[in-house]
Amino acid sequence: MRQAIELAKTGMLAGNGGPFGCVIVKDGKVVGQGSNLVLKTKDPTAHAEVVAIRDACKTLDHFQLEGCEVYTSCEPCPMCLGAIFWARPAKVFFACTKEDAAEAGFDDEFIYQEIEVKPENRRIPMVSLMREESLKAFELWKEKGDKDLY
Amino acid sequence: MRQAIELAKTGMLAGNGGPFGCVIVKDGKVVGQGSNLVLKTKDPTAHAEVVAIRDACKTLDHFQLEGCEVYTSCEPCPMCLGAIFWARPAKVFFACTKEDAAEAGFDDEFIYQEIEVKPENRRIPMVSLMREESLKAFELWKEKGDKDLY
Repeated sequence: MRQAIELAKTGMLAGNGGPFGCVIVKDGKVVGQGSNLVLKTKDPTAHAEVVAIRDACKTLDHFQLEGCEVYTSCEPCPMCLGAIFWARPAKVFFACTKEDAAEAGFDDEFIYQEIEVKPENRRIPMVSLMREESLKAFELWKEKGDKDLY
Repeated sequence: MRQAIELAKTGMLAGNGGPFGCVIVKDGKVVGQGSNLVLKTKDPTAHAEVVAIRDACKTLDHFQLEGCEVYTSCEPCPMCLGAIFWARPAKVFFACTKEDAAEAGFDDEFIYQEIEVKPENRRIPMVSLMREESLKAFELWKEKGDKDLY
């Protein structure tokens, strides 16, 4: 966790993004790390956890982080929480809370609230369209023989 | 949306990942696109929406998608929903619903449920650690003069 906090500080001071860092460990060894790179890479998905998950998956050459521990300097936002559930590490440690983050100007509480709102009523309206056509892609998937499940 | 569904089909048939595609449009022009690349890139964050957001941000050279419309072949999972809120497009259109996705074997309902659970009680336990040390990174951020807000 000390290393994750250090990444948060150095990344922010370098102007790469906000003060967030993340380190992923497997069997006592660091397999991935990252700091927030939203500003540097102009990528809104480049939160520390996402950057570290991608780094660890590259190291482990797998799309899942089985048996890994995630150390993140702050409680994950909904996007990073989703990314963590898809990556399936064994455990997550976080330092600051989302309330601390909000107090520092990083408020993801509105996203947690928006998840509860019906799609069409969200701040960014989300509207269904061409469902029947898209279902055909799912039909093709179900029929596909040689597929990997993830 | 027709193009997003086509990306879903071709990406899946190529073995790149699940049957999901996404196209991002600004002023009637495609500025970003993507299909699910989880299997191809071994990156659990490479959902169609995240891939397309990254692509559009590269095209527009900005970390926000102001005035853009997102066309995705399926209702976004919590990770992609978070990514969309951080990218701030104007509107989202989706074709299949998350219930359709669950029926095809892509069940993200458990993530929506886990968000409601207290961190320490989640399937992947999330535990706080070294909060005081990490708060110092936020203090540094607050003191930082030449920072971009995002």
